[in-house]
Amino acid sequence: MPELRKDVITGHWVIIASERSKRPQNFRIEPAQHPRGPFCPFCEGNESKTPPEVLARRRNGSEPEAPGWSLRVVPNKFPALHRDGEVGLTGDGLYESMSGVGAHEVIIETPEHQSSLAELSDAAVQDVLWAYRERIAALKQDPRIRYVLIFKNHGEAAGASLAHTHSQLIALPIVPIRVQRELDCSQDHFQRLNRCVFCEVIEKELQQKSRVIHETERFVTLSPYAARFPFESWILPKSHQAAFELCPTDLHAELAEVLKTLLQGMDRALEKPAYNFLLHTAPGSDDGSPSYHWHFEVIPRLGRVAGFEWGSGFYINPTAPETAAECLREAATLPHPPQGGPGIGTPAPPENPKK
Amino acid sequence: MPELRKDVITGHWVIIASERSKRPQNFRIEPAQHPRGPFCPFCEGNESKTPPEVLARRRNGSEPEAPGWSLRVVPNKFPALHRDGEVGLTGDGLYESMSGVGAHEVIIETPEHQSSLAELSDAAVQDVLWAYRERIAALKQDPRIRYVLIFKNHGEAAGASLAHTHSQLIALPIVPIRVQRELDCSQDHFQRLNRCVFCEVIEKELQQKSRVIHETERFVTLSPYAARFPFESWILPKSHQAAFELCPTDLHAELAEVLKTLLQGMDRALEKPAYNFLLHTAPGSDDGSPSYHWHFEVIPRLGRVAGFEWGSGFYINPTAPETAAECLREAATLPHPPQGGPGIGTPAPPENPKK
Repeated sequence: MPELRKDVITGHWVIIASERSKRPQNFRIEPAQHPRGPFCPFCEGNESKTPPEVLARRRNGSEPEAPGWSLRVVPNKFPALHRDGEVGLTGDGLYESMSGVGAHEVIIETPEHQSSLAELSDAAVQDVLWAYRERIAALKQDPRIRYVLIFKNHGEAAGASLAHTHSQLIALPIVPIRVQRELDCSQDHFQRLNRCVFCEVIEKELQQKSRVIHETERFVTLSPYAARFPFESWILPKSHQAAFELCPTDLHAELAEVLKTLLQGMDRALEKPAYNFLLHTAPGSDDGSPSYHWHFEVIPRLGRVAGFEWGSGFYINPTAPETAAECLREAATLPHPPQGGPGIGTPAPPENPKK
Repeated sequence: MPELRKDVITGHWVIIASERSKRPQNFRIEPAQHPRGPFCPFCEGNESKTPPEVLARRRNGSEPEAPGWSLRVVPNKFPALHRDGEVGLTGDGLYESMSGVGAHEVIIETPEHQSSLAELSDAAVQDVLWAYRERIAALKQDPRIRYVLIFKNHGEAAGASLAHTHSQLIALPIVPIRVQRELDCSQDHFQRLNRCVFCEVIEKELQQKSRVIHETERFVTLSPYAARFPFESWILPKSHQAAFELCPTDLHAELAEVLKTLLQGMDRALEKPAYNFLLHTAPGSDDGSPSYHWHFEVIPRLGRVAGFEWGSGFYINPTAPETAAECLREAATLPHPPQGGPGIGTPAPPENPKK
């Protein structure tokens, strides 16, 4: 019998296929492979092809917009939001609009034409986390910005249009609804029970173990109880912390290792899938909220999301999170696929629900 | 400058690309084409390959589970929810679950191996609407059911796993969150202003015209002001009506024509795209709610939804709804593509936002 599970953080219900739970070989996995274009604006030497950098990790003495960097952050050349202007609210009685003020930036994670964050050095992944922190902290100083959303589209099937590994940042004059829902529900939980709901989840999961994928001294990777997507995985700090940018940089080495471990595990278990990840963090500057808890949400692209899920907000997950966690734990013992090779698409029956 | 628009029905904000708004030729359209399998369980003569029918339109004298039908409704062979059992809520203090009780049915829209609802006869589309109505009304009598969701995945890229044209129904022990959000916000609007927000939207759109795609005596097709997806289109009854099954059957002929006109227009303007549609209707039986208003939401598959949109609930729409409505109005004057031919995929640059 399938089961409906309630996400304790958002209050949303999800159908979990607890019988005949799909394992990796039952999916048509969207591989991350990406045709290499004739020219890559993100490679070292091509700095003039991007807008001027807003942040970079550079060797001593190297000049901006020139080689000599290990990481660059640049505005998106085709931004979804513009940097200049005021957040003017316009209304005509029924409809309201706002000028599209904000920021849209690209974090170029390496100067080489590498396509996978999972294959970068530990130091390079630490630099990526450092860049997230620096840009979030800087943009939160702008009074027009209400939220800074960090995300990564890995592979063409996940929405990336360039193969060279990069993350993105969108700074918004509003808080995205899914984050707002988490904020509202976790605040409500705190008011009722005087505890952070995320801290409670972590405590319970570490006791129960069936959905834990990986645990280190300060972090835990788990498959959430009411996961919406097969193999959806979250990384959370074990100690309470609302805002990512308040995570001390001396924990970045450990966090980089945890993130790489998860991504490498997915590469092994799911044959280098395309994936998305998002950083959910508290919106305020210096946000010491007792009720919210920052975390990464990683979602591999397995099959297609049916349109009724967008249109109804109701998700059917064909892989129980306990099965997903078991597969990803097992993957830690498998050999890593050859560097840079494409994922091998496994022919598989089309996924349910459908007909 | 891009613009943020607030959906007056849900309160959600969307980024609308009001400059450089993408037209059909700028998209990589996911065509609806579907490889034909060696065997189709939905074709006439193969009735024994589906579970027994729960509803059918049959020629006088034809027997159930045998040829002689023009439409059949059967349980999904691989249901996401099961028909039998009680809706038991289980909790362990933090997590809550429910047994997966409900229904998952398939509406087989024609006995012939046709792949498109848009190409069926007017009478056949009327029969499809009749089947929606009958099944919603019947399932709403079951006290375990809180919501009946009707949807259609057209084309493999939209989640269909069989080419033979069909719709689906999922009856749930909960109300899906997007519908619940519409119900809550429209009720709130009604309490403040004593008017149905959908009725206000229809009135305004019919005055303003820029987002109206098609209008008949009783129905209007429009591109909503804060559309989340390019070419997203809604069909609504002009007069207030909360529940679809209360729409008198003598309006089905007009509604069938309106639905076909929209789908044929999309086929022309977007080269036979894969699409999804959903019917949003009020949950109660005999639902005469003064604040809610049933409607169809039709979403063609143009490019891919970036993962950050799922993970944040924040959508970027690269096509202004005014542009979409204009294209779909113009499409009414274009010749229809040849019957049954596949959509012609137009090579196009990958879509924003990305990099």
